[in-house]
Amino acid sequence: MARVKNPLNVAMVGAGMIRFGELFEKSLEDMIFESYENCLKSVDKGIEENAIEAAWFGCCLPGTSLRKEIVSGATLSNALTFYDKPVSRVENACCTGSDALRQAAFAIKAGVYDVVLVVGAEKMRDIPGRESMIGQANTSYHQWWHPRGLTGPAMYGQFGVAHMAKYGTKKEHFAMVAVKNHHNGTLDPYAHFQFEVTMEQVMNAPMISWPLGLFDCCPTTDGAAAVILASEDIARQFTDKPVYLWSSALVCDDFYGHQKRHYYQWDTTTIASKTAYEIAGISPKDIDVAEIHDCFTCTELIDYEDLGFCDRGKGGQWIENGGPMLDGEIPCNVSGGLKSKGHPIGATGVAQACEIFWQLRGEAGKRQVKDPKIGLTHNLGGTGAVALVNIFGIEPRQVS
Amino acid sequence: MARVKNPLNVAMVGAGMIRFGELFEKSLEDMIFESYENCLKSVDKGIEENAIEAAWFGCCLPGTSLRKEIVSGATLSNALTFYDKPVSRVENACCTGSDALRQAAFAIKAGVYDVVLVVGAEKMRDIPGRESMIGQANTSYHQWWHPRGLTGPAMYGQFGVAHMAKYGTKKEHFAMVAVKNHHNGTLDPYAHFQFEVTMEQVMNAPMISWPLGLFDCCPTTDGAAAVILASEDIARQFTDKPVYLWSSALVCDDFYGHQKRHYYQWDTTTIASKTAYEIAGISPKDIDVAEIHDCFTCTELIDYEDLGFCDRGKGGQWIENGGPMLDGEIPCNVSGGLKSKGHPIGATGVAQACEIFWQLRGEAGKRQVKDPKIGLTHNLGGTGAVALVNIFGIEPRQVS
Repeated sequence: MARVKNPLNVAMVGAGMIRFGELFEKSLEDMIFESYENCLKSVDKGIEENAIEAAWFGCCLPGTSLRKEIVSGATLSNALTFYDKPVSRVENACCTGSDALRQAAFAIKAGVYDVVLVVGAEKMRDIPGRESMIGQANTSYHQWWHPRGLTGPAMYGQFGVAHMAKYGTKKEHFAMVAVKNHHNGTLDPYAHFQFEVTMEQVMNAPMISWPLGLFDCCPTTDGAAAVILASEDIARQFTDKPVYLWSSALVCDDFYGHQKRHYYQWDTTTIASKTAYEIAGISPKDIDVAEIHDCFTCTELIDYEDLGFCDRGKGGQWIENGGPMLDGEIPCNVSGGLKSKGHPIGATGVAQACEIFWQLRGEAGKRQVKDPKIGLTHNLGGTGAVALVNIFGIEPRQVS
Repeated sequence: MARVKNPLNVAMVGAGMIRFGELFEKSLEDMIFESYENCLKSVDKGIEENAIEAAWFGCCLPGTSLRKEIVSGATLSNALTFYDKPVSRVENACCTGSDALRQAAFAIKAGVYDVVLVVGAEKMRDIPGRESMIGQANTSYHQWWHPRGLTGPAMYGQFGVAHMAKYGTKKEHFAMVAVKNHHNGTLDPYAHFQFEVTMEQVMNAPMISWPLGLFDCCPTTDGAAAVILASEDIARQFTDKPVYLWSSALVCDDFYGHQKRHYYQWDTTTIASKTAYEIAGISPKDIDVAEIHDCFTCTELIDYEDLGFCDRGKGGQWIENGGPMLDGEIPCNVSGGLKSKGHPIGATGVAQACEIFWQLRGEAGKRQVKDPKIGLTHNLGGTGAVALVNIFGIEPRQVS
């Protein structure tokens, strides 16, 4: 029954973010505003603010972090004096930002709007310690698990353990992800962490939940990011170098870990990426640069397999051989990733899109990948219950 | 720059809900499942569950009501065993359910999907008293207002007072809305309240916040509702009587009351409805039946004017003359409205769409309006910061 799906070919014409970090001095609205300002400035040929017809706002946990659960679209309207226009809020666990971008792209593809704004933002640091956002996030999924110790690292750690047991992956392989992403973070002025770590530091770091030590876990970070999307028809009014969203695929499955089919892969990522590749008419090996979900180092390693960057069970070998390095086969998380750049949930997917925008336009400075033409972003939420893959290219895609 | 906007013409081919009420015995997932089952059964020619390609889930306050702020799409996946498919969660204050429908319609119009599900659901009753959902909702908007007494009724009551002062509207006019909607509720098997109230009861009810007495306020209600949308091309595979969404317009402005331009009307509704009428190529007087936002009776009365059903300042006179009655010029809230049917926030907009589906198909039983061809739904959230208007017709709309 489903009709043949065509590439979306919705253009990104601007991208901006703020440096991620501990931003106690900034409100949610401050972060939204600053990322938006940077985004506006990035539009090569300029853009009138009133050309923006609608907006989508990705924000995941404002009730937990700010005691403002109903942020609605009006929070963004207030922050930007973006009045008398449509703004929708999207939440989809760690896929929140990338799903906001997906919904916005659908509206453009539908011909409803020609120019729209997407902003993702999250305050993560204002509630400290045991009441932390990540702790709360886990409570959100599995109310009865968290008090029993099944926190974020513990849940994701199980996948690390299962992967080790099934494929012989070693803790060292996970550590290589941390070393790579911390290195990349030193090249990214927007990254929360901008320092190197060594294999020894990662291997000997305090244990959080086996096999994940302190440096295997992403930090808790505040941040915001924004992109402007335009229809294919008018994108070149704003820039001679639009970046096109070819396909966007979201997949949800079971929220509850004890019902999962297996613990050494995430089928949500596999299905989402296959769908996204199919719509774009490409294979995984066509990807030139990828920003993928590395909330924990074992997540990134399993992502390599789920996304088809390497064969099943070969994630450890692939990083050992340099596959995801800045100069490797498919550079992964050249921005530093969630691990080093940070993971303000609602902002994360939008910030990944910013990085792909800069990479495909050759504007990524010290972390620039050589001449990339196709980029991918990937998020995984709810310990794998939700996955979203967006694929971007430097030209509109025609698939016959 | 904006291109000419065409009607959406996305078809509703099924609609189902559960009776709203105090549903302590049902979980959020139970309510989602039951409304979905009723929706499936409503599809005249039947539908295979696997024909549904994607879903949108409207839910506003799960963190407050269930301590599960990250519901994400996976909550709906779990409730319906709707696995390996895309599900997005939308929140937009009291427009949450109708915005979920809007996003889903955009995805169909974009050609990304042919058949999608929209479910709205909210547990409102599990947290009682001062910790109530409505109390929390107000805290969410205006943290510093609620402890000072500016609760929901107080905020909306200001609009009632301002309307009385400016236009000479009387408390009796607001009371007429309550009497009408309670009467309509007795005709709707899905309504939370199914009892009549008299003018005397409404006028003499305990005062909540002037001019709003107990019967001027909508109840706190649990509920869920679901609709199935299909592309215009294939809608008739499912039913010979599709109902088409012609246009959907969302408008946000300022969240904060002290910055509002005035207190006797909501510009968000006015702008949203004008946009929706324009896309549909109709005028307000073409509407045959309307489900409009009556969180408080004064809200409904002001809606009449904001939606263009009567002239500015004439809302009181219009109801006095029977305009919004079941057999009036434009019957409003024949389902009982939020006032009598109930207002489970995420479900409200979707349930309004269900009512329009039944009305336009002549299936609304004792509350059936005579031969309606065009229907409208309207929500207003955040004391007017967000408004959404959807317009439906019995045929695809062509506007030249």
